[in-house]
Amino acid sequence: MNKEQLFVKMALSAWETHIGRASELLNSLSDEQLLNEIAPNRNSGIYLIGHLIAIHDAMNDILGLGKRSHLELDEAFVQNPDHSGFDMPAVSVLKKYWNDVHQKLGDALKQLSPDEWFKRHTHMTEEDFAKEPHRNKLNVLINRTNHLAYHLGQLRLLKSN
Amino acid sequence: MNKEQLFVKMALSAWETHIGRASELLNSLSDEQLLNEIAPNRNSGIYLIGHLIAIHDAMNDILGLGKRSHLELDEAFVQNPDHSGFDMPAVSVLKKYWNDVHQKLGDALKQLSPDEWFKRHTHMTEEDFAKEPHRNKLNVLINRTNHLAYHLGQLRLLKSN
Repeated sequence: MNKEQLFVKMALSAWETHIGRASELLNSLSDEQLLNEIAPNRNSGIYLIGHLIAIHDAMNDILGLGKRSHLELDEAFVQNPDHSGFDMPAVSVLKKYWNDVHQKLGDALKQLSPDEWFKRHTHMTEEDFAKEPHRNKLNVLINRTNHLAYHLGQLRLLKSN
Repeated sequence: MNKEQLFVKMALSAWETHIGRASELLNSLSDEQLLNEIAPNRNSGIYLIGHLIAIHDAMNDILGLGKRSHLELDEAFVQNPDHSGFDMPAVSVLKKYWNDVHQKLGDALKQLSPDEWFKRHTHMTEEDFAKEPHRNKLNVLINRTNHLAYHLGQLRLLKSN
């Protein structure tokens, strides 16, 4: 395995580890626990789950993998903070979206060649990418993994001690 | 910049971004806020800060950068959970350790050549590394960045809304 393949493997493996941990946590929480806030007057579990689904679903567009599936989640889970009064799907529906979005995304990520990972993502112009070539598709994956870890640390608080 | 240098830049840049965010958060919190728990009956801010200092300080050993500075923190902040009754340094002392440890570590990380980053870290045997070459020094940095992000999401809860 050359260094290029190794680096893709490291970044993908960190992503998959965190998706695995989040999925396991999600499956271990009851609907009632997910409706709770992570701490008094903070985000609810359902908000953070919807937020992660929407952000990960949008990776399809950013990485050029295809159309995202749930644009309708952005209003309640990305563009506005929790408790803004926008309709949220039921926990059972979000749990299904979680599985579907990560299944589809996981399959698509595995298809990308190392060369493809080092290309520009769709939110960068060619001009900016020429100046900052580290802001490639792989960098999106690294950033999204850190974003997931950040919220996973919070979601963990929904479990009883 | 070749791809090898690009990977290192991506991983280091994610690390530096998160250390920067954590330092900024730490500086914005009063000693009293840091003594609070992140949520009822959960870890205190000071525990998580001590934990991160100890884990990051230990990267000196794991990455072969030199001796770590604060082995004495492991008992209270790594080997045992919060509220175990072990002595903890004052918040002011931990804040100084935070700056010193990250200053020293940041300087050392910048000195590592791309070649060096792809070598075995000291917690891997040569035999295991031959089988799993992605478990190199750069992988340690990627994992520690995710670990930091996880706890940063929790420390953020110490700030008033």
